[in-house]
Amino acid sequence: MSASLRAQCVLLLGLLWSSLPAASSCRIRIPPHDQVARVARFVAHQCDWASMATISSHKPVVGQPFSNAFSVSDGPEGSGSGVPYLYLTRMEVSVQDLQMNPQASLSMSLAQTEYCRQQGFDPQSPLCAHIILSGSVLEVNGTEAEFAKKALFSRHPEMIDWPSDHNWFFAKFNITQVWVLDYFGGVKTVTPEEYFQATPHRKHH
Amino acid sequence: MSASLRAQCVLLLGLLWSSLPAASSCRIRIPPHDQVARVARFVAHQCDWASMATISSHKPVVGQPFSNAFSVSDGPEGSGSGVPYLYLTRMEVSVQDLQMNPQASLSMSLAQTEYCRQQGFDPQSPLCAHIILSGSVLEVNGTEAEFAKKALFSRHPEMIDWPSDHNWFFAKFNITQVWVLDYFGGVKTVTPEEYFQATPHRKHH
Repeated sequence: MSASLRAQCVLLLGLLWSSLPAASSCRIRIPPHDQVARVARFVAHQCDWASMATISSHKPVVGQPFSNAFSVSDGPEGSGSGVPYLYLTRMEVSVQDLQMNPQASLSMSLAQTEYCRQQGFDPQSPLCAHIILSGSVLEVNGTEAEFAKKALFSRHPEMIDWPSDHNWFFAKFNITQVWVLDYFGGVKTVTPEEYFQATPHRKHH
Repeated sequence: MSASLRAQCVLLLGLLWSSLPAASSCRIRIPPHDQVARVARFVAHQCDWASMATISSHKPVVGQPFSNAFSVSDGPEGSGSGVPYLYLTRMEVSVQDLQMNPQASLSMSLAQTEYCRQQGFDPQSPLCAHIILSGSVLEVNGTEAEFAKKALFSRHPEMIDWPSDHNWFFAKFNITQVWVLDYFGGVKTVTPEEYFQATPHRKHH
């Protein structure tokens, strides 16, 4: 292949690659697995959605666990707060559960990104880092609702146009315990204090 | 650009494209949203992992909902049974919950595939089809364990080498109720009978 042909192909390939949704995941750099709180903050910021477990308030499964998917954001790209914010409506089945019992659990996994596939890690492998947050879902207002709006709408622009008659409100996941599966040897726990003190990304000087 | 250059670039781009994990999702063809049971079977077969909600048996969250990620398979590619099979160890935190209370919920979303991103559907949009299974997790043996092994190991080859001292066993999710979010208008329910009678893929004649 001539140098000019190679150059033009590289350019074309570059353009195609940068146009793929998966491209951003090429930049995923997970913190070292022994820096557990940093890994937790990293996963919480990388994931645009989470699975939420509630105690069902709906027949025929009243009192049973119920798993459902929700979009989340802990802040605009690159400035995560660690707090998963949600945009909810009381018309939603899991949100109705939360009104009876606000206790919930959120799980987020790098299987939701291209990372685990690119690394060849099975979704159930501890190397395919995933976290579980325990706590409760609380409505937020005022300045925190403003931050939640910025966090969610910047990463989920479709939300801006969701039907207003659904009475959407902003909520946060109030974390009481963090569980991390990021390496062999079983689940590790992180306190909310350790979690919020951690810096998900290496600081640049 | 010369014809030969264009031809060679197209070839290169094709090779790159076909080498991407995302490529398979280009073939995703979801059944019509009003064929709810078919959509449920389709999502259950497309997803290689699921989020499982259990009632926690672990301090400090005993009795609270707990969400966690597990690899699943309802059958080898293209021949799904509708039954999500799991490969579990009693060393795992959620499996320990199940030993106290086998009631659980599995959620699977096309947000786990390239489909929703490619279609421009937010993970929380009902158009980003997701399903919730209610029921319980039961160990399987004999011929069903043989099918579970084929179903799981064909789609999760890494499992073959997981440490034998973890005493892995095969289990199935015994479905009592199916919840489907695949369009506007709220959650729809499907009975296990309707679910297992449905054909996820259009039959070829």
